[in-house]
Amino acid sequence: MELQKAIDIYNEKKKLSLAMNHALGVLSYDNETAAPKNSYMGLANTFGVISEMEYKSKVNAEYFDVVDTLIANKEQLDPILKREAEEEEHSLKVMRSIPMEEYVEFTEMLSKAHTAWVEAKNESDFSKASPFLEKIVAYSKRVASLVSPGMDPYDFWLNEYEKGLSTAVLDAFFKRIREALVPIIKRISEKGELFRTDFMNEKCPIELQRKLSDYIMEVMHINRDDCSIGETEHPFTTHFNKHDVRITTHYHEDSVVSNMYSVIHEGGHALYELNTGDELIGSTIASGTSMSIHESQSRFFENIIGRSEEFCELIFPKIKELFPVQFDGVTARDFYLAVNKAEPSLIRTEADELTYSLHIMIRYELEKKMMRGEIEVKDVPKEWNRLYKEYLGVDVPDDRNGVLQDMHWFGGMLGYFPSYALGSAYGAQMLHHMKKELDFSSLVRENRLDVIIGWLTERIYKYGMLLGPNEIIMNTCGEPFDPDYYVNYLTEKMTDIYGL
Amino acid sequence: MELQKAIDIYNEKKKLSLAMNHALGVLSYDNETAAPKNSYMGLANTFGVISEMEYKSKVNAEYFDVVDTLIANKEQLDPILKREAEEEEHSLKVMRSIPMEEYVEFTEMLSKAHTAWVEAKNESDFSKASPFLEKIVAYSKRVASLVSPGMDPYDFWLNEYEKGLSTAVLDAFFKRIREALVPIIKRISEKGELFRTDFMNEKCPIELQRKLSDYIMEVMHINRDDCSIGETEHPFTTHFNKHDVRITTHYHEDSVVSNMYSVIHEGGHALYELNTGDELIGSTIASGTSMSIHESQSRFFENIIGRSEEFCELIFPKIKELFPVQFDGVTARDFYLAVNKAEPSLIRTEADELTYSLHIMIRYELEKKMMRGEIEVKDVPKEWNRLYKEYLGVDVPDDRNGVLQDMHWFGGMLGYFPSYALGSAYGAQMLHHMKKELDFSSLVRENRLDVIIGWLTERIYKYGMLLGPNEIIMNTCGEPFDPDYYVNYLTEKMTDIYGL
Repeated sequence: MELQKAIDIYNEKKKLSLAMNHALGVLSYDNETAAPKNSYMGLANTFGVISEMEYKSKVNAEYFDVVDTLIANKEQLDPILKREAEEEEHSLKVMRSIPMEEYVEFTEMLSKAHTAWVEAKNESDFSKASPFLEKIVAYSKRVASLVSPGMDPYDFWLNEYEKGLSTAVLDAFFKRIREALVPIIKRISEKGELFRTDFMNEKCPIELQRKLSDYIMEVMHINRDDCSIGETEHPFTTHFNKHDVRITTHYHEDSVVSNMYSVIHEGGHALYELNTGDELIGSTIASGTSMSIHESQSRFFENIIGRSEEFCELIFPKIKELFPVQFDGVTARDFYLAVNKAEPSLIRTEADELTYSLHIMIRYELEKKMMRGEIEVKDVPKEWNRLYKEYLGVDVPDDRNGVLQDMHWFGGMLGYFPSYALGSAYGAQMLHHMKKELDFSSLVRENRLDVIIGWLTERIYKYGMLLGPNEIIMNTCGEPFDPDYYVNYLTEKMTDIYGL
Repeated sequence: MELQKAIDIYNEKKKLSLAMNHALGVLSYDNETAAPKNSYMGLANTFGVISEMEYKSKVNAEYFDVVDTLIANKEQLDPILKREAEEEEHSLKVMRSIPMEEYVEFTEMLSKAHTAWVEAKNESDFSKASPFLEKIVAYSKRVASLVSPGMDPYDFWLNEYEKGLSTAVLDAFFKRIREALVPIIKRISEKGELFRTDFMNEKCPIELQRKLSDYIMEVMHINRDDCSIGETEHPFTTHFNKHDVRITTHYHEDSVVSNMYSVIHEGGHALYELNTGDELIGSTIASGTSMSIHESQSRFFENIIGRSEEFCELIFPKIKELFPVQFDGVTARDFYLAVNKAEPSLIRTEADELTYSLHIMIRYELEKKMMRGEIEVKDVPKEWNRLYKEYLGVDVPDDRNGVLQDMHWFGGMLGYFPSYALGSAYGAQMLHHMKKELDFSSLVRENRLDVIIGWLTERIYKYGMLLGPNEIIMNTCGEPFDPDYYVNYLTEKMTDIYGL
């Protein structure tokens, strides 16, 4: 095929594909936020039609020829189209290998799986969601076996979420983390209660918590005309373009910090999407480059900034203004210590910075076993509970607070969780290098997060998917990934707080 | 074409079309509820792609042949497919006549027009929305001239919204209404203040108003699993299927009845959609049969039920429970009188039952003039203000409270407004005949709206679009439409309240 013809056909298909992804994205967002419960009944059909259309549009000899032509001539393409073509080749590799009926059926099933998970979680009944998880595991294994026969299916999916990632890398990473952090966790637990946390579960009216969210968005320089806050069971971020980003949070009357750190975490994701380059608008690569880099940003804001003493000092006056009775007699230092209390617990999203990675490690172990057929789905809750006891020393009272707490698996994402731990480690390394150029402490204390966001935009955000994760690490750190920064960061912080 | 082949192709296209309408519907709903302001930037492209796809799928020789074949053999089709084919022929008539570029451009433009209207209304600046209204008028006239050359363009659109409707019918209808009601309005205004209304603008916290909405939904037997409540500038109802209906309302702290009657009005629309027959699921006719019949239901619930003394007695205990201070010393009778206070005013959606039709008459006159080119769009605000002075005796302070108050024109709907007045008149006639079979007063007083809803479901709702508006009038009333019932209903009610 002539190159120009290939470009024209590609652009035409891209327009359709972007529109369909936009529609699917809003349908999903709506389903998780505003839709009445029974909305799922009509949704499956629409999801099915759209994914069938997408499939038919792309999985055919002509379009394979289009993409092959682009790839064969990729050095002649402008950088954006070149990266688009590479991504398309990659995603087509998966689509090409799956028969259409399976692909469509799976897409339809996913929308039902989400509804089942919400119900299962509410009723703390794993059996209501497990048939869907079984299908998701089977489908994920099947895709892996079709696309890369002979490859470990879990390695296949890790590599899908983060190019170059494998169980070999992660086994080593988690070993390093575990060996460094478990002794610290132990020493902290021997110290007993060093500071007060009684104010952490004061009742704070949700209307006022919403005002706190608005304030946090302001501090994070997030333009609300481009980014809304919704409310869901499990907070998440989604985006349709850089002028339409949605974060969600949840409000619990008796935990003001739960909402606050959800907004900061999702706000970190949002900042990435809001600051991709204008020249990427309308392309397929106007988006964060990988899950781990994305999580490096959300967790950078949530923890490295959000749980720093400087940030606590910055925002504490607003907290006292909104909740004067609840925080009567509490100081910013008290607040800083309390939000950094390291204590093994049940819920990942509410875990402290230190024990967080162990939550991920448990999910990693389970995903690996499910994908390798070393455990049946029905036995996952039992193994989950066993691992929580072994690594964190906590007893899981029910599935709601155990295996059903996260939506990821029931949304078809097996291999995503490790990116949270990796992202945390990336963030610590970025901080180290950022501090060589910026007076991080003063900037946070003086409400100048815009300077930090500017630094990150120049090195990460503006590129969207133009650069891959390893290039982003080089761009920000000038060296390859090294987990020691993360270990050092946590050790220093915990030493300060607990006087280890 | 063979009939079976035509049926197969039709069903295939229908599946796509239903999915695309679902997507467009949710994209629009999201845009008006949850989306950040700048969402519209990406929305126009997606709307454009989907409407282009819809257009290409249907406007071609093969599909014309499909629909012509179905119509030629319609007596052999099952009743649902037969009605679908008739509707498709009708809607294709419009699509067939418009060049694709114009059709797509118009769809894209509409999403921008909505955003412009919101901004124009907020800033009370008609000039921000008028360029869009000009385009909408021009497009509407052009469609009319292409589909039915020689026909009055406004008659064309009236007939689109309500089969058989014309300016001749409406001129006569509004003349009858005006001659009967204007003297009553005059006599009432001479009476002066007969009863207290001071409690109507007490501050009622929005959190508690939300609880009132929940209660109203319960009284109306609306299953929340099938129907959600959103919040928008201007309340509306939309639906994607009978298990996914959305109503919206607005909350004003100093007007509890504004939200309450919005919920009842939109709830009436919702009940119609929620109760279409199960056998219509997945068809294109699972929907209310016309705008006027739809409005007959929303206004039946809002006014005939919602502003009846029996309904006020039913719900007043809940109002006192939620707002004990605000309604201290107020009786159900006081409340009934206050919500029926007849007084010329500025805002249609908050107008009383008696003066309401005059608001519609003004819009009708203006639409007629715009469509006939007897007035330029830029002069509409002036003429709007003049007519409000002439018919209602009120001075319009600004466009926000004048010509910009309603979204309809800026959503492309010219010819819709008359259905509100017609619907009110239909409802009064239906009430007369319902009372022969049901003890209406007792049922409302005793919280048995389910019986009334059952009566309406059997005669109206379950049919969806299987029956046309005239057949629905015959089904409920056993006689053709007669506006005298409406005049008599209002005369009797106002006589009771004002002792005329």
